[in-house]
Amino acid sequence: MQPSRERHRPLTRLCGVSDQIKVGVLGSGGKVGQAIVAAVEAADDLDFSAGVDQGDPLSRFIESGTTVVVDFTHPDVVMDNLKFLVENGIHAVVGTTGFDDERLGIVRGWLADHPGVGVLIAPNFAIGAVLSMRFAQQAAKFFDSVEVIELHHPHKADAPSGTAYRTARLIGEARAAAGVPKSPDATSTELDGARGAEVDGVRVHSVRLAGLVAHQEVLFGTQGETLTIRHDSIDRTSFVPGVLLGVRDIGARPGLTVGLEELMDL
Amino acid sequence: MQPSRERHRPLTRLCGVSDQIKVGVLGSGGKVGQAIVAAVEAADDLDFSAGVDQGDPLSRFIESGTTVVVDFTHPDVVMDNLKFLVENGIHAVVGTTGFDDERLGIVRGWLADHPGVGVLIAPNFAIGAVLSMRFAQQAAKFFDSVEVIELHHPHKADAPSGTAYRTARLIGEARAAAGVPKSPDATSTELDGARGAEVDGVRVHSVRLAGLVAHQEVLFGTQGETLTIRHDSIDRTSFVPGVLLGVRDIGARPGLTVGLEELMDL
Amino acid sequence: MQPSRERHRPLTRLCGVSDQIKVGVLGSGGKVGQAIVAAVEAADDLDFSAGVDQGDPLSRFIESGTTVVVDFTHPDVVMDNLKFLVENGIHAVVGTTGFDDERLGIVRGWLADHPGVGVLIAPNFAIGAVLSMRFAQQAAKFFDSVEVIELHHPHKADAPSGTAYRTARLIGEARAAAGVPKSPDATSTELDGARGAEVDGVRVHSVRLAGLVAHQEVLFGTQGETLTIRHDSIDRTSFVPGVLLGVRDIGARPGLTVGLEELMDL
Amino acid sequence: MQPSRERHRPLTRLCGVSDQIKVGVLGSGGKVGQAIVAAVEAADDLDFSAGVDQGDPLSRFIESGTTVVVDFTHPDVVMDNLKFLVENGIHAVVGTTGFDDERLGIVRGWLADHPGVGVLIAPNFAIGAVLSMRFAQQAAKFFDSVEVIELHHPHKADAPSGTAYRTARLIGEARAAAGVPKSPDATSTELDGARGAEVDGVRVHSVRLAGLVAHQEVLFGTQGETLTIRHDSIDRTSFVPGVLLGVRDIGARPGLTVGLEELMDL
Repeated sequence: MQPSRERHRPLTRLCGVSDQIKVGVLGSGGKVGQAIVAAVEAADDLDFSAGVDQGDPLSRFIESGTTVVVDFTHPDVVMDNLKFLVENGIHAVVGTTGFDDERLGIVRGWLADHPGVGVLIAPNFAIGAVLSMRFAQQAAKFFDSVEVIELHHPHKADAPSGTAYRTARLIGEARAAAGVPKSPDATSTELDGARGAEVDGVRVHSVRLAGLVAHQEVLFGTQGETLTIRHDSIDRTSFVPGVLLGVRDIGARPGLTVGLEELMDL
Repeated sequence: MQPSRERHRPLTRLCGVSDQIKVGVLGSGGKVGQAIVAAVEAADDLDFSAGVDQGDPLSRFIESGTTVVVDFTHPDVVMDNLKFLVENGIHAVVGTTGFDDERLGIVRGWLADHPGVGVLIAPNFAIGAVLSMRFAQQAAKFFDSVEVIELHHPHKADAPSGTAYRTARLIGEARAAAGVPKSPDATSTELDGARGAEVDGVRVHSVRLAGLVAHQEVLFGTQGETLTIRHDSIDRTSFVPGVLLGVRDIGARPGLTVGLEELMDL
Repeated sequence: MQPSRERHRPLTRLCGVSDQIKVGVLGSGGKVGQAIVAAVEAADDLDFSAGVDQGDPLSRFIESGTTVVVDFTHPDVVMDNLKFLVENGIHAVVGTTGFDDERLGIVRGWLADHPGVGVLIAPNFAIGAVLSMRFAQQAAKFFDSVEVIELHHPHKADAPSGTAYRTARLIGEARAAAGVPKSPDATSTELDGARGAEVDGVRVHSVRLAGLVAHQEVLFGTQGETLTIRHDSIDRTSFVPGVLLGVRDIGARPGLTVGLEELMDL
Repeated sequence: MQPSRERHRPLTRLCGVSDQIKVGVLGSGGKVGQAIVAAVEAADDLDFSAGVDQGDPLSRFIESGTTVVVDFTHPDVVMDNLKFLVENGIHAVVGTTGFDDERLGIVRGWLADHPGVGVLIAPNFAIGAVLSMRFAQQAAKFFDSVEVIELHHPHKADAPSGTAYRTARLIGEARAAAGVPKSPDATSTELDGARGAEVDGVRVHSVRLAGLVAHQEVLFGTQGETLTIRHDSIDRTSFVPGVLLGVRDIGARPGLTVGLEELMDL
């Protein structure tokens, strides 16, 4: 049994179910949807109100009095889903991919006409991943050296991982903005590839190993000390706590929020 | 040779030495003082203007046109030093210990009369240690579980270390403020001491091992993922980059600043 | 798809199935049994010949020409299973618990009458766990200091873990045998529990954290250097490669073998 | 104060100094030599009998009754030193570099004429480094995957380090001998260098970071578990315990011993 957050919400228990947030799930029949339904049902302060899968009518969310809907579906259908939700005053937490500037602009347009509604769109709901990227960005300008090591199962097709690539770019940008020079490196004899790939001036190393899932270390160093930020994800349900965080907070954040970190007040 | 920051300050080189900060050092004959003098001399944008040791007159700082003085001396003399510096319009970066609320109040009083002067007083100048404490505090409320492991050389007298104790307290306070319950723990059979010491609801483990210097890990966990913040200090000069950061910034921060993190804009 | 070992056994493919080992599984309907059946079926050099569950006759192993049987069942039935297998000339790989000296003696007695048969009984089939225990034992006498940190999910009832306890005892015995004194430790002020539990003179620390599964670090230290042996188990199927190792080797090791390490030639 | 081994040799104290080994040091004026002299003087069971530096006569060792000499000198003089020591019945522990097969053959020739004398020649006296290489070699054939990460200060000229290169070769040879295939790797899109350098089929990654000294991790993985062997060297005196081990043992090992691991009985 995974510990849930309900224990520190005693008021819910005293005041009855009227304080619970009514949560609907789009794509409730898929693996991700099922994990979200289970987590909502396990939380004292949340009430699973309706699930909608391919072919089911979106009107279920209205009939059930749903106030927040979680959407982990497909780029082909997510825009229709969001239009319906916003127009009906229902908040949304969206993990579906495929949002470019154009799509974000369209969503902002809908929200302008419904000022009380909040929509969260995030590419990554793993709280640990989001925090480690943010911390790496904050630390970037204070150290002479920085490198990234990402470690994954051997079935991964790309090296480095998308997360490592983004992390390196954020670090590189932060260092450039602060005028920090490249990490010192006296290497004069290198076996091809030993020093890793270079992304925005940051060396990135990709390890592929049976028995691993998804892991990343950002190493910072300066005179006499190092700081390491490590994130380990060993389970495909690591997005769940981030989704629940979004569900609980989005009602108080009208308009479009992009990225889980925006509602973490870091 | 340790890489220094001077390389990303090309303007200094173009405009001549007039842009350099004139830095004086109190306690310049001690081990800490010597390391600071060496670092100031190695930095292109800093100019070592005067060193003062026991018996030397503080007036040397005035004669040499010093604008910032670094004080790593002793609680018995630091208040006299600071009074002199503030009254003479010289900024100060202070690593000397022993500042309680009363002493801080006195310094604030002096500074009220000299509004252009800045004083930084910090208990810890190791940038990695300061950042890891701040990150731990920021992450505290987002995870179900948290524990601290600190690892030191076997000649250390106290367990846990002062840094681990403070880190645990900061985490405990942040979790309490957010209403996060204690980390889940189903332990029903424990060999005495196995689960560590408890500080504000946070378990702290102290490892003592030959071959180590000073190291700390803060481990956070939630469903399917963990985040680890690790700090390794392997050299007694790890305070140097933090002191230089203070020297470069304190001139632009009039009044009293307590803690290096305050000028890191985290 | 987990990489299996079949790819480096090309002779099997050239010579046909006659080289395959016919493997039976006891408790084939349980979770562990199912994982073993799946692994046997995926391996080119092994042939799943028969599964036996509660109520099924053991004679199936004879009818199917099975040469090795894997038993992960229950202490109540394992002795009857083993008696049958040995008397019928079938090798056995046993992960069932509950073997004390008396039971091992009985098995040895049966094997004395059937000198060609091999039985492997092991408490732990995770190759990484077995190796890390052995390496810890080998390294024990060469370092001034040693401590153990074990990290598990928060639903674990005992602290320290059984593996950490055994590891500490093996280390303690190896150090005592070599006349190595206790790890140096100058701690004079300790918050209760900070320095962990003591097992045979070795300090053991137990971390409990959401998002973890089962992990252990053995830290050795001497002048200027440390050696760390870390084992991470993130999946309940980590016993599978060790079971297959046993299945492939036990036919060549008549008599009783206790512990996977005995056939790893370390 | 570094804990020394003398405390677990109580017999030495009871029986008087006559049990002490008389140890001489060649190159006693250099940094390495000074560290060895200090360690010999601190050990109860060893007696520093004579130091010889450039220009000093080797006969000092005879006059002082020295039984073991430590040689950390230079390839140009080490052969003359060894010839003298062997011919005078004095054991030697040698960390000087430059021994190829030809030189080793010559030393074996001298020893053939003086069968009671022992000579230890080792390229690496850091016990942790020697053990981690040996453990990596032992574990190599039991895992599907293996990669090496070495991490050093940014002033290092070669990547990968010599130790990482040797470690990868030993692992590659052990896997080839056991017929283990290459580590699985589905990478189809790689940013140049991300997957590291390849040494005998083993991927090696080189990190260069301010604040580090010399560190190495060997990562092994199979279904559901990983094993990591990590060595951290943070001090240039980490060779000392290995030298003392050699000094204490070489008297009982006549003939030539190459590599510290040979007298560790692993």
